[in-house]
Amino acid sequence: IAHYSSVFDLLSPARAWCQAAAQKLPGGIGSKLCDLLPALDGDLKTMTFLQEVVDILLAYITESFDRETKVIDFHYPNELLQRNNWELQDEPETLDDILISCRATLKYAIKTAHPRYFNQLSTGLDMVGLAADWLTSTANTNMFTYEVAPVFVLLEYVTLKKMREIIGWEDGRGDGIFSPGGAISNMYAMLLARFKMFPEVKEKGMSSVPRLAAFTSEHSHFSIKKGAAALGIGTESVICIKADESGKMIPADLERKILEAKQKGFVPFFVSATAGTTVYGAFDPLIAISDICKKYQVWFHVDGAWGGSLIMSRMHKWKLDGVERSVLKLTWNPHKMMAVPLQCSALLVREEGLMQNCNQMHACYLFQQDKHYDLSYDTGDKALQCGRHVDIFKLWLMWRAKGTIGFEAQIDKCLELSEYLYNKIKDREGYEMVFNGKPQHTNVCFWYLPPGMRYMEDKEEKKKRLHKVAPVIKARMMEYGTTMVSYQPQGDKVNFFRMVISNPAATFEDIDFLIEEIERLGQDL
Amino acid sequence: IAHYSSVFDLLSPARAWCQAAAQKLPGGIGSKLCDLLPALDGDLKTMTFLQEVVDILLAYITESFDRETKVIDFHYPNELLQRNNWELQDEPETLDDILISCRATLKYAIKTAHPRYFNQLSTGLDMVGLAADWLTSTANTNMFTYEVAPVFVLLEYVTLKKMREIIGWEDGRGDGIFSPGGAISNMYAMLLARFKMFPEVKEKGMSSVPRLAAFTSEHSHFSIKKGAAALGIGTESVICIKADESGKMIPADLERKILEAKQKGFVPFFVSATAGTTVYGAFDPLIAISDICKKYQVWFHVDGAWGGSLIMSRMHKWKLDGVERSVLKLTWNPHKMMAVPLQCSALLVREEGLMQNCNQMHACYLFQQDKHYDLSYDTGDKALQCGRHVDIFKLWLMWRAKGTIGFEAQIDKCLELSEYLYNKIKDREGYEMVFNGKPQHTNVCFWYLPPGMRYMEDKEEKKKRLHKVAPVIKARMMEYGTTMVSYQPQGDKVNFFRMVISNPAATFEDIDFLIEEIERLGQDL
Repeated sequence: IAHYSSVFDLLSPARAWCQAAAQKLPGGIGSKLCDLLPALDGDLKTMTFLQEVVDILLAYITESFDRETKVIDFHYPNELLQRNNWELQDEPETLDDILISCRATLKYAIKTAHPRYFNQLSTGLDMVGLAADWLTSTANTNMFTYEVAPVFVLLEYVTLKKMREIIGWEDGRGDGIFSPGGAISNMYAMLLARFKMFPEVKEKGMSSVPRLAAFTSEHSHFSIKKGAAALGIGTESVICIKADESGKMIPADLERKILEAKQKGFVPFFVSATAGTTVYGAFDPLIAISDICKKYQVWFHVDGAWGGSLIMSRMHKWKLDGVERSVLKLTWNPHKMMAVPLQCSALLVREEGLMQNCNQMHACYLFQQDKHYDLSYDTGDKALQCGRHVDIFKLWLMWRAKGTIGFEAQIDKCLELSEYLYNKIKDREGYEMVFNGKPQHTNVCFWYLPPGMRYMEDKEEKKKRLHKVAPVIKARMMEYGTTMVSYQPQGDKVNFFRMVISNPAATFEDIDFLIEEIERLGQDL
Repeated sequence: IAHYSSVFDLLSPARAWCQAAAQKLPGGIGSKLCDLLPALDGDLKTMTFLQEVVDILLAYITESFDRETKVIDFHYPNELLQRNNWELQDEPETLDDILISCRATLKYAIKTAHPRYFNQLSTGLDMVGLAADWLTSTANTNMFTYEVAPVFVLLEYVTLKKMREIIGWEDGRGDGIFSPGGAISNMYAMLLARFKMFPEVKEKGMSSVPRLAAFTSEHSHFSIKKGAAALGIGTESVICIKADESGKMIPADLERKILEAKQKGFVPFFVSATAGTTVYGAFDPLIAISDICKKYQVWFHVDGAWGGSLIMSRMHKWKLDGVERSVLKLTWNPHKMMAVPLQCSALLVREEGLMQNCNQMHACYLFQQDKHYDLSYDTGDKALQCGRHVDIFKLWLMWRAKGTIGFEAQIDKCLELSEYLYNKIKDREGYEMVFNGKPQHTNVCFWYLPPGMRYMEDKEEKKKRLHKVAPVIKARMMEYGTTMVSYQPQGDKVNFFRMVISNPAATFEDIDFLIEEIERLGQDL
């Protein structure tokens, strides 16, 4: 806290100037929205207002990285609704009120940058990524054509090519798109696989196509089923392949189920292997799976939303061996392990032209064919979206600031931290690992058994009580606001903690803290 | 320009302080990314770096509103690729280089806030909306659960309810979601209609469902067909209904085609009426269409992505009469006519629980059922996406700053400007309107005939030459960078200008300027 104040003392000249400027303005900063730009002579008031907002944000950022600050100031929904006036009114508020709303919003927000926030696969806040996102908001444009987003369209082109080179596709050739999240990227993948096998589906729909079957491991992300439901394929056509004890798809079961589906008259069209499952962080054996896909002529997709980034690490990329064989496409979310601000999800496609053929509708009012520049840069018609948010700049700018080696170091450090956690608890009293062996990703899955439960004889009763431990500890973490980590059941396994590390701010000490905190909050259970 | 400098002279204390602070730091601002937060003692360098970025952004904003500035500094793709080093490298750059990249990116960006930028349906830059987007980036979280986005989830709840009240649904009851754009919102609508009629489609896919038919006007947005292709319905099942001369769907043709489809064995399930078509800005007759939908028990959707916002205007809301009858849902994009920064698109759904039933997959690792708060605020499982960007805060904060009456005034002003343009050119020499009568939205569609073409006898030759006029004028506009307006053909109508006004910065003088500019750039053609 002392440290934090001192920085803001240093920053105060900027704030002091703005306050002085504001006082000179008629009505001060607290006057009206209509005084801002584009109002005539609105510049000064606008700059002052935006600077005030930036000061609030800078204070929030410093605070977020301070371990003395709470990760969250938690309140139950009904309570939070009453703690502030959040209603929308007919009448405008003053700019002072707007600043108050900004402060209130951040007061109750979760500090996703906090070094002890481990709750999601996307954590942390990169300063260059943040700056890039501020710039993106200011540029406020749309990805559909080169005409309205010349630089961003080129940067998407440059970045996708680089990503394809890293995967190992020849000369970085292929296609791709940044989409609003991994679920949509996976849906695109399924859509492209179906179109590639049965192009008539675009015009004639599923009634022109035999009954399809898609395959994915029982540990895969729910977006595969969600996509199948949306695309009219149906969730029953998504066949779950058994995973081994550590969460990896069992290739022999895949082959068996492909044959079974064929026998039942289904046409197998799509296998989605997962590189980094959500709960265990398991990497499916891509080479063996791709061999089966080749044998049965099924399109091979890799959902690397969580684990795809490991390809940037010389130490860990072997876990993705075989990814270059993904004949069609790969989902890779830089907003997870690369800590790019939300959201930033890439779908990489091997075949040039496929996305365009699959999705284009030739809307002449948007994609005029008689424009004066090279139309191959008008990427809008290959997307499912019409308008598309600019998600590329933050990734591109971070890449420039870190270099490929910087991303590698960041990824390696997170994996090192998770190995530290694993080594710390694997033989510690009161802990049980959910699966044996060193985790492949940063996911460390474990049960914490409070002292009173450790020597219980009745296995069923013990299981029942253990199921309630993680939810209570988690609720207490949130109420104290000290740290946050996720939990869930899986199959017949009762609730366990799933620790994941993607936050570049986390250190060994934060891992130690997490363990101490679990024990402090759970010992009486 | 003079005015612009003077503001920055005033702002310079802030900048000067930052520069001084930077010089005191070892290595200055131009040192390394790894000096920033979360590095120990990274606060000062971080604040200095972010302040430098903000200074760049503030300068860009002031410039964007300055009519003396170019809308775009246009370069052809290959040329732009060579004008700067955009490549991604292994090695990191310095923070000074990062600032240079930020400046370069903005130098070649399109100034979408510019008062003379009319190119898209989404134009302008609202200062409160921008501040809110900066805050959103800083909060860097995800909409799936209350746990990770408590305030934003509540604000989405409050705002959707307010929007439903404005539509006129009883007590604002219903559901909804902010999705990544109108195309995805429309796809959701079709997905929900199909599920509502045939819930078994979720599990069993389209093979369990009879051949479906969807109906939309020939002037509707291409996302209806795109959605049908993706959902496995097929574009041939989207039946185009004739529009009248002003672009409105002809209800009699809808009824005829519904009957025809039934006779052919199709099951009509979905009618998408458009409130504000993309090119003409036409409002389909919603009451007549809803009567037909009721008669034939077809789900009635309104695509109000462009025109839905007119419901906030007491003067213009009559154009949406009947929208309250949309039994299922409505697409409404505040990022268009309400000038909320991109992107911000709402889908409003009348029936509570429908989205949840249609899309939920019960992923226990994300939507734990034993959490300690009211789970109805965990909205993630009703979405197609898993992670979902926070699009709500900018709309909510702008609404607070303007009030409902502020949005109304902004919308009314844009419509007033378009009426001014219409009145100005409808009888002016060298202009021909594409359709007769006052436009219903801000779309003004017209041909400009250069003097040499006005009295051509050969109608076909004239048409052929006229087709090339708008593209050339547009290319010249971009090369001079003075203004930008869209053009396209429609049906058998050759290329015409489609002027749209959603930019709150535009004035009568800017409309005058546009006309002068078209004449200046086109007189020699």
